[in-house]
Amino acid sequence: MGFGNGIMRIGRVELRVLDLEKSASYYKNVIGLEEVGRSQGRVYLKAWDEYDHHSLILKQADYAGLEHFAFKVKNEAVLNELEKKIEQFGCDTSRISYGTRMAEGQAVRFVLPTGHNVELYYEIERIGTKTGTLNPHPWPLDTRGIAPHRLDHVLLTGDDLKTVTRFFMEVLGFQQSEKITTVDGEELVGSFLFTTNKAHDLAFIKGPDSKLHHVAFYVESVHDVFRAADILTMNNVPTEVTPTRHGITRGQTVYFFDPSGNRNEAFASGYITYEDFPTITWTEDKIGQGIFYHRRELVESFGKALT
Amino acid sequence: MGFGNGIMRIGRVELRVLDLEKSASYYKNVIGLEEVGRSQGRVYLKAWDEYDHHSLILKQADYAGLEHFAFKVKNEAVLNELEKKIEQFGCDTSRISYGTRMAEGQAVRFVLPTGHNVELYYEIERIGTKTGTLNPHPWPLDTRGIAPHRLDHVLLTGDDLKTVTRFFMEVLGFQQSEKITTVDGEELVGSFLFTTNKAHDLAFIKGPDSKLHHVAFYVESVHDVFRAADILTMNNVPTEVTPTRHGITRGQTVYFFDPSGNRNEAFASGYITYEDFPTITWTEDKIGQGIFYHRRELVESFGKALT
Amino acid sequence: MGFGNGIMRIGRVELRVLDLEKSASYYKNVIGLEEVGRSQGRVYLKAWDEYDHHSLILKQADYAGLEHFAFKVKNEAVLNELEKKIEQFGCDTSRISYGTRMAEGQAVRFVLPTGHNVELYYEIERIGTKTGTLNPHPWPLDTRGIAPHRLDHVLLTGDDLKTVTRFFMEVLGFQQSEKITTVDGEELVGSFLFTTNKAHDLAFIKGPDSKLHHVAFYVESVHDVFRAADILTMNNVPTEVTPTRHGITRGQTVYFFDPSGNRNEAFASGYITYEDFPTITWTEDKIGQGIFYHRRELVESFGKALT
Amino acid sequence: MGFGNGIMRIGRVELRVLDLEKSASYYKNVIGLEEVGRSQGRVYLKAWDEYDHHSLILKQADYAGLEHFAFKVKNEAVLNELEKKIEQFGCDTSRISYGTRMAEGQAVRFVLPTGHNVELYYEIERIGTKTGTLNPHPWPLDTRGIAPHRLDHVLLTGDDLKTVTRFFMEVLGFQQSEKITTVDGEELVGSFLFTTNKAHDLAFIKGPDSKLHHVAFYVESVHDVFRAADILTMNNVPTEVTPTRHGITRGQTVYFFDPSGNRNEAFASGYITYEDFPTITWTEDKIGQGIFYHRRELVESFGKALT
Repeated sequence: MGFGNGIMRIGRVELRVLDLEKSASYYKNVIGLEEVGRSQGRVYLKAWDEYDHHSLILKQADYAGLEHFAFKVKNEAVLNELEKKIEQFGCDTSRISYGTRMAEGQAVRFVLPTGHNVELYYEIERIGTKTGTLNPHPWPLDTRGIAPHRLDHVLLTGDDLKTVTRFFMEVLGFQQSEKITTVDGEELVGSFLFTTNKAHDLAFIKGPDSKLHHVAFYVESVHDVFRAADILTMNNVPTEVTPTRHGITRGQTVYFFDPSGNRNEAFASGYITYEDFPTITWTEDKIGQGIFYHRRELVESFGKALT
Repeated sequence: MGFGNGIMRIGRVELRVLDLEKSASYYKNVIGLEEVGRSQGRVYLKAWDEYDHHSLILKQADYAGLEHFAFKVKNEAVLNELEKKIEQFGCDTSRISYGTRMAEGQAVRFVLPTGHNVELYYEIERIGTKTGTLNPHPWPLDTRGIAPHRLDHVLLTGDDLKTVTRFFMEVLGFQQSEKITTVDGEELVGSFLFTTNKAHDLAFIKGPDSKLHHVAFYVESVHDVFRAADILTMNNVPTEVTPTRHGITRGQTVYFFDPSGNRNEAFASGYITYEDFPTITWTEDKIGQGIFYHRRELVESFGKALT
Repeated sequence: MGFGNGIMRIGRVELRVLDLEKSASYYKNVIGLEEVGRSQGRVYLKAWDEYDHHSLILKQADYAGLEHFAFKVKNEAVLNELEKKIEQFGCDTSRISYGTRMAEGQAVRFVLPTGHNVELYYEIERIGTKTGTLNPHPWPLDTRGIAPHRLDHVLLTGDDLKTVTRFFMEVLGFQQSEKITTVDGEELVGSFLFTTNKAHDLAFIKGPDSKLHHVAFYVESVHDVFRAADILTMNNVPTEVTPTRHGITRGQTVYFFDPSGNRNEAFASGYITYEDFPTITWTEDKIGQGIFYHRRELVESFGKALT
Repeated sequence: MGFGNGIMRIGRVELRVLDLEKSASYYKNVIGLEEVGRSQGRVYLKAWDEYDHHSLILKQADYAGLEHFAFKVKNEAVLNELEKKIEQFGCDTSRISYGTRMAEGQAVRFVLPTGHNVELYYEIERIGTKTGTLNPHPWPLDTRGIAPHRLDHVLLTGDDLKTVTRFFMEVLGFQQSEKITTVDGEELVGSFLFTTNKAHDLAFIKGPDSKLHHVAFYVESVHDVFRAADILTMNNVPTEVTPTRHGITRGQTVYFFDPSGNRNEAFASGYITYEDFPTITWTEDKIGQGIFYHRRELVESFGKALT
């Protein structure tokens, strides 16, 4: 059944935010997501080009960070099979029941070796994109802000990147598109993983467990990355890294922070991967160029501002 | 990824050309592929961002057209399994033995219900991209011409689109991203199929069996489509459709002809698909807008110039 | 700048339209101009990046076309001096008095050898751009439609291009950036004129006197030309020439029609000119490539649809 | 005779470089200028889209910096007239005779109140662009590196910006497009001047006299700025400011250093100016946003690395 083991995509991210209204306003007006519902102290949002009910959940909390993220799988059989495999790997799993969150069905929940909460699910209400499926226009006129196409990926920090990489590859069928190693090749300090034909769907860099580095939204081109950066300044959004290219993934990027300090990215392009894609290696002495291709060195906050 | 029953991508296209030297020169200097070898009246070429030995084979012939195209599958087990399924569907298959063509291993060959020759294979020499896999730069400085990243898709014509669509979906695990139907919805006149997360890997439009409509190469953005069109004029290449957007796939495009009259496309962008992507429907009254979003009507040659 | 004998720019165009409300709605919602006032059967509009009160006037009429266009000059002394020169050339002039049209001062009016009505003026109310002059943002968030920066140029038809070119060069201090001649070089069939550092501020092609070929609005890049073309299809605006490049001026372009049939252009880029710019020559056998660089031949309507 | 007083453009810059061969190689292979000649320890270069013999002169020296820069004026009468005006302002002038430098005619030389050497000239050999003036293609295929269209502007530092601004406006007919003042509006700390329809042809920021801040070359779009930044990394060129937008001029930019430490810029876009352009004011509290619109603060080196 192959590559990805039935996992289709990263389908949702739940972020803890310090001020729900302010955060909802930011994700709607600056990022340009649509609010699709509210319930139990949570705001649900989606990007205009996504079919599912939501891809981002904001949850009021006392500290910022990643509450959970989740992969949408093909069907119930895949869910059950992966549940077993996860347990066999040694992770505890639990079932999230229907209706725990808005418009969602049941899910399997587990904790990564890096401490992050992950869910797998296959049921979610479908409400469609803004352009529809009958003779559609290519994009909608009535969007606000950056208006990304979709949630793209998350980057997390953790201590044992070797084990978490092995987990994703052996249990969930991911592959590694790129890795950053110490110069002697001994230690893994960055790991980029894909389960679609994207350059990455998920990545880890060495750091404290359970932390979020950033959540990325997809825009189409370098032009749109620049436009995003303009919009960030117009809205006084703290911008950490101005428009540049990643050496890793080749994507174009701008990094900034939501009102709670969760790092966001507007990400464009990136190469295509396939199941026979060879892992690209970056040695730590070139990590600056790997992450910020033009600057060729890390920004100090980049490794420190985690939520 | 992976929902394609172990099929990874469209890996190669073999085109019949009327003048091998002239054609090789065109594909090297205008398209910007690299020649990687010659053997038995054939020239083998690859794009700079492909890992496999070749993705395009030019074969000297008395009439232009598509000799065969082929999908790379995951491994031998997939090859054997798909061979059986193809036979069960009622297509005859044959084995192409090792070394029949340069740098290739064995393949399973069969004929589509539309008369096109297709192969499946998993073995091909790997020679890598121009940028490598160790601390790579994002693109190479020493390219010529349009310099696409890769072979992207083919569009074929055929009479019975319903059957060939069913073949790809049932036997090879493809899904349909878009379809064009008569206004009453009765007849299928266009079918766009994917086995990766691309908007299409292969498509059919109603027309004579066994014919090629076009072979597409991938460029990154509308800027690159425009640059491609400039290069075509500088090289006096017959250009059929100047830069525009497709309604179908949303991609940006320019169409032109190789020296033998085989239609080429430089194609950019296009949305992402997943296994739960709903089929988008275009009704024939909107086919002009579906194919050429800005012009909103077909070009006369578009349905006629086939090889 | 300044070689134009004190002429600063093409400052306004007055178009005759068949349905004032429909036209106003089109220029506001599709082109994306701002309505700044109405008076005596006229609607006044400006682009977001222009400082003067208006650059486009729509006038209700029984037939479409160009009522007049006008150049803004430096000051009254220039106005008086050019008035004399125009009369010396043999054109009759008249004075348009203060307040004849909204927010305008006096003007000198005359008729070109090609029959078009032209005015010179130096007084017009200044209302500023949407971004202001104190710590401005680079562009405003609240625009609609194509949202060009400004009126860019007009292209007119006429019989005696030699004389009208001489008029602009000798009397008004323009220079010729490009010309199209018959292959033998004997006859002038296209003349492109500038009085700023732009590739053209005004152009003539051989055709009936007194007619308008098109009015062009400036957008920044090929990306914006493509976006404009998308917006035209979303609004069902008749589009004559889909995104392409001009050989002449090198600019990127899309041509379309307002509700009265007046041709509009969204035009981007183009080279810079100076007073020592040599005239580029296009021979008529290459006119297709000169006008539509990618298609390399004229569109039939291009020489016929005039207002 | 009006605006610009007969000055057409900034026509050349002479830079002092520490290693002539290394510098020539950099300006040819990374910037992508053409070497057009050598003489007396100098290398002469031009951009592909310039008509004059050269726009950049490299001169071997013991310390880096700006040897002189020069404006091309309309004709000898303008040269003579401006010479008088310069003297009346109180600057000493001298004549540079024919053939002092390669392919140049005579020039008037003077020293700015800020200590910089400036020349005015009207004679220089014309060798044409790479695309020619007969049915030209829009750009040449055979360029290397960044391949800018042309020299665009210089930014200089000086102590008395008020006087040097007055000099350019009163004597040379420039206008001020933008200024940076202290928050109370009392002191001028940045002054941006134009004599064409560009957003600036020359600018000053507060700092030591006689120093060069940067020399800018023009590229067409944000896409080309990004491409330039990629090329800089491929060539290990020290890059100070990665792709971003200026608030001032709205242009897109990347800053980097030549092998001698002279700062270069690849600059794109920027608004159009006319003689009635109102001066835009930036208050010093917003200077970060004015200069680096996305970062919103100055880079430390930006005010310090001067040559």
